[in-house]
Amino acid sequence: MTDNLKVFSGGSNPDLAMEICGHIGIPLSPMEISRFSNDNLFVQIKESVREKDVFVVQSLTTPVSDHLMELMITIDALRSASAKRITAVIPYYSYARSDKKDAPRISIAARLVADLLKTAGADRVLTMDLHADAVHGFFSIPVDHLTFMPTICDYFAGLLDLSKVVVVATDAGGAKRAGRFAKRLNTSLAIIDKRRLSDSNVQQGLVVGHVKGLDAIVFDDEISTGGTLVSTVDTLKRAGADNIYVGATHPVLCGQAVKNLRQTVVSRIVVANTVHVPAEKQFPQLKSLSVAPLFARAVKHIHTGESVSALFKP
Amino acid sequence: MTDNLKVFSGGSNPDLAMEICGHIGIPLSPMEISRFSNDNLFVQIKESVREKDVFVVQSLTTPVSDHLMELMITIDALRSASAKRITAVIPYYSYARSDKKDAPRISIAARLVADLLKTAGADRVLTMDLHADAVHGFFSIPVDHLTFMPTICDYFAGLLDLSKVVVVATDAGGAKRAGRFAKRLNTSLAIIDKRRLSDSNVQQGLVVGHVKGLDAIVFDDEISTGGTLVSTVDTLKRAGADNIYVGATHPVLCGQAVKNLRQTVVSRIVVANTVHVPAEKQFPQLKSLSVAPLFARAVKHIHTGESVSALFKP
Amino acid sequence: MTDNLKVFSGGSNPDLAMEICGHIGIPLSPMEISRFSNDNLFVQIKESVREKDVFVVQSLTTPVSDHLMELMITIDALRSASAKRITAVIPYYSYARSDKKDAPRISIAARLVADLLKTAGADRVLTMDLHADAVHGFFSIPVDHLTFMPTICDYFAGLLDLSKVVVVATDAGGAKRAGRFAKRLNTSLAIIDKRRLSDSNVQQGLVVGHVKGLDAIVFDDEISTGGTLVSTVDTLKRAGADNIYVGATHPVLCGQAVKNLRQTVVSRIVVANTVHVPAEKQFPQLKSLSVAPLFARAVKHIHTGESVSALFKP
Amino acid sequence: MTDNLKVFSGGSNPDLAMEICGHIGIPLSPMEISRFSNDNLFVQIKESVREKDVFVVQSLTTPVSDHLMELMITIDALRSASAKRITAVIPYYSYARSDKKDAPRISIAARLVADLLKTAGADRVLTMDLHADAVHGFFSIPVDHLTFMPTICDYFAGLLDLSKVVVVATDAGGAKRAGRFAKRLNTSLAIIDKRRLSDSNVQQGLVVGHVKGLDAIVFDDEISTGGTLVSTVDTLKRAGADNIYVGATHPVLCGQAVKNLRQTVVSRIVVANTVHVPAEKQFPQLKSLSVAPLFARAVKHIHTGESVSALFKP
Amino acid sequence: MTDNLKVFSGGSNPDLAMEICGHIGIPLSPMEISRFSNDNLFVQIKESVREKDVFVVQSLTTPVSDHLMELMITIDALRSASAKRITAVIPYYSYARSDKKDAPRISIAARLVADLLKTAGADRVLTMDLHADAVHGFFSIPVDHLTFMPTICDYFAGLLDLSKVVVVATDAGGAKRAGRFAKRLNTSLAIIDKRRLSDSNVQQGLVVGHVKGLDAIVFDDEISTGGTLVSTVDTLKRAGADNIYVGATHPVLCGQAVKNLRQTVVSRIVVANTVHVPAEKQFPQLKSLSVAPLFARAVKHIHTGESVSALFKP
Amino acid sequence: MTDNLKVFSGGSNPDLAMEICGHIGIPLSPMEISRFSNDNLFVQIKESVREKDVFVVQSLTTPVSDHLMELMITIDALRSASAKRITAVIPYYSYARSDKKDAPRISIAARLVADLLKTAGADRVLTMDLHADAVHGFFSIPVDHLTFMPTICDYFAGLLDLSKVVVVATDAGGAKRAGRFAKRLNTSLAIIDKRRLSDSNVQQGLVVGHVKGLDAIVFDDEISTGGTLVSTVDTLKRAGADNIYVGATHPVLCGQAVKNLRQTVVSRIVVANTVHVPAEKQFPQLKSLSVAPLFARAVKHIHTGESVSALFKP
Repeated sequence: MTDNLKVFSGGSNPDLAMEICGHIGIPLSPMEISRFSNDNLFVQIKESVREKDVFVVQSLTTPVSDHLMELMITIDALRSASAKRITAVIPYYSYARSDKKDAPRISIAARLVADLLKTAGADRVLTMDLHADAVHGFFSIPVDHLTFMPTICDYFAGLLDLSKVVVVATDAGGAKRAGRFAKRLNTSLAIIDKRRLSDSNVQQGLVVGHVKGLDAIVFDDEISTGGTLVSTVDTLKRAGADNIYVGATHPVLCGQAVKNLRQTVVSRIVVANTVHVPAEKQFPQLKSLSVAPLFARAVKHIHTGESVSALFKP
Repeated sequence: MTDNLKVFSGGSNPDLAMEICGHIGIPLSPMEISRFSNDNLFVQIKESVREKDVFVVQSLTTPVSDHLMELMITIDALRSASAKRITAVIPYYSYARSDKKDAPRISIAARLVADLLKTAGADRVLTMDLHADAVHGFFSIPVDHLTFMPTICDYFAGLLDLSKVVVVATDAGGAKRAGRFAKRLNTSLAIIDKRRLSDSNVQQGLVVGHVKGLDAIVFDDEISTGGTLVSTVDTLKRAGADNIYVGATHPVLCGQAVKNLRQTVVSRIVVANTVHVPAEKQFPQLKSLSVAPLFARAVKHIHTGESVSALFKP
Repeated sequence: MTDNLKVFSGGSNPDLAMEICGHIGIPLSPMEISRFSNDNLFVQIKESVREKDVFVVQSLTTPVSDHLMELMITIDALRSASAKRITAVIPYYSYARSDKKDAPRISIAARLVADLLKTAGADRVLTMDLHADAVHGFFSIPVDHLTFMPTICDYFAGLLDLSKVVVVATDAGGAKRAGRFAKRLNTSLAIIDKRRLSDSNVQQGLVVGHVKGLDAIVFDDEISTGGTLVSTVDTLKRAGADNIYVGATHPVLCGQAVKNLRQTVVSRIVVANTVHVPAEKQFPQLKSLSVAPLFARAVKHIHTGESVSALFKP
Repeated sequence: MTDNLKVFSGGSNPDLAMEICGHIGIPLSPMEISRFSNDNLFVQIKESVREKDVFVVQSLTTPVSDHLMELMITIDALRSASAKRITAVIPYYSYARSDKKDAPRISIAARLVADLLKTAGADRVLTMDLHADAVHGFFSIPVDHLTFMPTICDYFAGLLDLSKVVVVATDAGGAKRAGRFAKRLNTSLAIIDKRRLSDSNVQQGLVVGHVKGLDAIVFDDEISTGGTLVSTVDTLKRAGADNIYVGATHPVLCGQAVKNLRQTVVSRIVVANTVHVPAEKQFPQLKSLSVAPLFARAVKHIHTGESVSALFKP
Repeated sequence: MTDNLKVFSGGSNPDLAMEICGHIGIPLSPMEISRFSNDNLFVQIKESVREKDVFVVQSLTTPVSDHLMELMITIDALRSASAKRITAVIPYYSYARSDKKDAPRISIAARLVADLLKTAGADRVLTMDLHADAVHGFFSIPVDHLTFMPTICDYFAGLLDLSKVVVVATDAGGAKRAGRFAKRLNTSLAIIDKRRLSDSNVQQGLVVGHVKGLDAIVFDDEISTGGTLVSTVDTLKRAGADNIYVGATHPVLCGQAVKNLRQTVVSRIVVANTVHVPAEKQFPQLKSLSVAPLFARAVKHIHTGESVSALFKP
Repeated sequence: MTDNLKVFSGGSNPDLAMEICGHIGIPLSPMEISRFSNDNLFVQIKESVREKDVFVVQSLTTPVSDHLMELMITIDALRSASAKRITAVIPYYSYARSDKKDAPRISIAARLVADLLKTAGADRVLTMDLHADAVHGFFSIPVDHLTFMPTICDYFAGLLDLSKVVVVATDAGGAKRAGRFAKRLNTSLAIIDKRRLSDSNVQQGLVVGHVKGLDAIVFDDEISTGGTLVSTVDTLKRAGADNIYVGATHPVLCGQAVKNLRQTVVSRIVVANTVHVPAEKQFPQLKSLSVAPLFARAVKHIHTGESVSALFKP
């Protein structure tokens, strides 16, 4: 069944790629990524891919431009080497955040990158938890869009008494996502409203909704500098929340994120391994749940032509 | 300045098109739309458009399929008649609501229609208040995306004492939009949470946030059947809101909308004229503000190459 | 053989689609077509089509714009759901009549619609008796173009003594088509010349050729309002034709067609079931021959990679 | 007005190109066409065309493949040299005859060549009397389609007493075209029916319609070998026609055409100069009317953005 | 294995196509190439190719334009006849020589033709020894680029004592290619420098490097008029070279090539059969090595999805 | 003349961009380049570019991936902001070196990047001294390809007695380029042949041609690590060359280049400022000639539609 299936990994998250291969039961296929002295990237696929069904795993993590170029050059090399079909597996598609023109004369880069990937030769995309659902529509090639939601909801359902939980959005923009978690966990919803009410309380957010005496779970799609989270935790504590949990898909954890988050009173921060977190960035509250089994099943279903949406049925 | 500028109107909203022309100071250009006996649409442009800068005004209102086909056949006829540039002016782009795959095996029709318009020959799009900002990115041609927000905010600022106003979103999905209005009007924010808490109160929404004793303004992008609005008004009243206002861009007003809305306690419903509301659908609370001046200025700026974003500077 | 073959039906002609499925020996696959309150169409495919060979049956009948949009949204949903190949089966492609620019600044809509179908994601088209042969060339995707001619010729050969038959074209534009029937049936040919010869006989056509004492068969590609047919029958009768028959592929039968045709002296009107004729539109002279067996064989041959042109070999 | 207008000529019909330039009042721009020793064509544009509006005149005459490649390489060179707009002026688009699939597994070459011209970089096409009107729709770039009809009709109207004229189509496929001439000249119509009626008269065509004692004008789009014309003249004579005239747009005149036609009883053969007829191919009955004035006016109108259809208004 | 594999041949080199088929073990598939009287080409594929893996063999030899058009029309007919995949097998891609803009306002025709072939419907290209390696990059479809080098190097290694051989480039532009042969054969390298040093020796080239007393092998990609070769042989002789050999891939042999080359002192001229050399052009020193086995293996590997680069491993 | 002309600069070489603007007589237009915390690039154009003729200056220097992404996001933002035309000015197009497949399963990245730039929205490219001429043909958009050759030749002609100069290529692959310089300077040519002749002299190159007692100028397109240059200088010295000069367009100067080159006996290394050389990388022998005047003239000619090739006429 997997004779014609090959999985390659860019430099972004080889651990995840290898774990996916382990679940599928095939070895990771070899490729070489290097640089010429003038800083041009060079990619060579090290085994024949002619008429093979090829998947390339690469998250758009720091350094994003290099990882994206690696991915595109790899795809071009595979296409030119007559791969039958090329699926870009992008567990973390960071440019999804640039999804609108909220200032004049900027790029909707999430669309641009989608177009570039198609030009490079990608036939399909497999990704997880895009910043906004509509980003799916930026791709003109088919996208399978996995979600970490069932995994993380099951986790919290096993951990907490949901009858005393409130789901919290860090701002109005995140209310839609938080609302979906609240609905699935059947809890109430609260939102942090950062709008300035008077000159004196600029720094503090206001909680719209009831959190007092409840365990709060803050859901977001990614944790970047953690700045918003830190101030959200602070606001929730001041509003009388009991224990505070965080759930997010992509542990970007850049800048002072680790330093700041380990000092908060948050009980647990649950993330996926779409982004590789090196050992020196890990800290006690951080709990990583592997999405490799899910990606492995999606890859197999795509390869064999079985339904991918069926993976998410109860 | 307007020698080479021509504005045509499809059958969806000729009143708005004529009003736009009036503000520009040119006549509406003639075209014929008819049907063959086999129900095929037929369009003929009735004056030369060779090397002209052409704008076609057409909202995607009921009957949507016919209005969309009219628009595409008109664009194709203009292109084939050697128009220099064709801008589809779509004040209400109804398919923007189909912007994601929230169920298996459905179409992100907002992207499909964007691609169809390009295939038909549209060089640009001019539209207003797309259901989601990201829909902008579905177009591979340049889009000028106008907003009704300053107009409607100015209106309410002149009407109400904003210090006793709360902005309300009809559900978590609308919190982002409502949050933006709250920020601009500098009011607090509340959200209707329709989640079922127990078997007994399925019907009622819960208000997340404080509305008691405040005037509430419910903002949405369009009013369709009005069903959500009616129940929102009901919920707000029960939660102790004082006067209730509604602001929305697109008065779709289908089905029982007019009948239901005129019976609510809502004080005023303020809308744009992106969608034509015939005389028989108008009712006392409904207040329509014309966006023709704004569209006219945008068309002129596009024609002469002046900044369109400058139209929204304070 | 048919494991990976799926047939869906739009709303235009489900009877034909089911009959085709019956001949293939597979069930019609389920899909849902509905409308949002703002009149946007919504389509959901109700079973997995991943890596399947999918055919969608939809004639472009009244309401044409809705049926076309249904077809395009269905194709887009199928593509996005990873169908392996999508064939638009369009038994009656009504826009084929808009195949030229015979007036300034009109659209060659038959080409536009062909391009739109490709943009929507159609990989192939299967159709029957396009108004003009050249319309085949408007598609940049492969087209299998079936013909009703052998079926209808066999029918008339069994019904009439061909040695006393003349084939008649309703005007000079139809002479080419009629000539092909005359050649196949080995009969003589006549043409109705509607040109005005003097002020007094505007209404009457002239018969070019001999029809007196002969049985006449009038061939056309579609019967729309029937107006031309009624006047042709009249002209032929006045010119001394004996019995009059009509053969046409597409029974569009709009407006007063049924009322007018049932009152003529025409002996029989033979059509295909490419367009669904509801019970209330049927009348004694109308004889419908099913093309489902032919479409079923074409679908099977396309699916298995057998020659389709071989279906028409003697 | 013509500062930025440049006209080049391929090798097919430089006389016509120069005549067109003469009517516009500009010199023909210089270019070099040559061949490498390996028979590759080489084209060099000999003056700057940057930001110019460029027209290239080339009929697809023998040797067709070379003339087509010349045209495409010229267009590519112009595009690469930054011409602002490139219009392929193809007075005789010979491949228009390959406009349908009337046999299995053949190319609709008229569509293929249209696509190739676009790929080469043509922005527009200007042509005359395509074999079938629908060929217009094979182009995805704008086409201005001129017609020789008014010129030739005016000519015959001045030459003959139209009240004793019949317009004749050489076969059923040409009836549509002939019908249009008959309508414009307000004459009756006849058609040659070449179908075999019995074993004895295979060779002879039958005249459908009345020609006895009338002057006949046979209209066709091109005269190739002249074989059909010779037999048509023969048939008309035997049917009692008085004088016989021929009108056609494109004097291809290949093979034995000249030899055969000069021996017929045809009184006059009137053609355009879309195809260059060298001195040795001219013969007494052949009358060439120049279309250079018409092409010159079309080029000027395209250049300045005036209506081209207006050229054909009464 | 070869059930779905079909090989067709254009008119350029049917001998090679048949030889390739012989090595694969399948018959050459039938197609008809003819011309209409107006010099339009006509191609008909004479057996079903639906869902087949089709290869069309055609070198771009004199008459190049006709052979290229034949190839493109054949590809279009195959595509329209639903071939699964179409590989253009172009043993000699003559336009590769037009690979740069070394003069203003010319076409990089090698790129243009690559784009035209894709437009016509080619899915892949299989070729040999392109004039410059970068021409590979002109194609946006996958290219398998075979090389004659191992074959010809093995031949010379068996013929000569390589320790007394020098490889010679006919000019600086050919030094790169010659250098590769020198490296593979492990010989020294010399270059003919045609630059004019003074007014008196314009005609003569200078040898850069040592050739005295050595056997010289002159390598080039094609032999066209042979003019350069004749003067190179002359220069080498005058510089004291011993025996002189020539190796080249494509025996174009146009103009006076045969006459000139048979009179030189060159010992042997070794070429491939990518270009058909008719009997009357053969001469004693010319030795042709067949590349049919190599092309046959490449076709089989492409068909079955095996590595093509593996064909060139030691 | 320059009212509608705007020049922007990416982060790669703002000094050159400003110098170009100075020569044109316009200010550099403002834009902001920054990074989000997740390392996504963000670009905002800080003034209206609607209907402007825009040039973006960006060399593909270290970090290449970031500079390329910056360029593409900038172009996308400009296109979306309705710029009339966007020219990517890429003085050093580093990926030009990846111009062929000289190993299995690699990318011809020079073609890939050309396609990506088009997808991003570039309408034209302006560049200098591509590694290989054929790279020009990788772009499907028009390219103006400037050359440093006249500038550097004039420089050496003023510096040296050309009668005692030999031009040297560092290997056979560079012979073509060196040959062109030798021809222009009318000097003789020599080539370093690095092929291993026996086991003992692996390290040393051999000089093909005469250099003893002559001044040598080594020409190359870029200086990267300088490793080849250092060994070439060594080889030339050992072969008796007198003074040694180096001419190259792009001073990439990476790794140990500066350290190594300043220690050689080379008299002078002459380069362009296509790549920014920071103060700490400059050294006595390095002489930079500005190409800003040439780029400024090219930008002006492109803007006004004057011939660019005319800039290089004597």
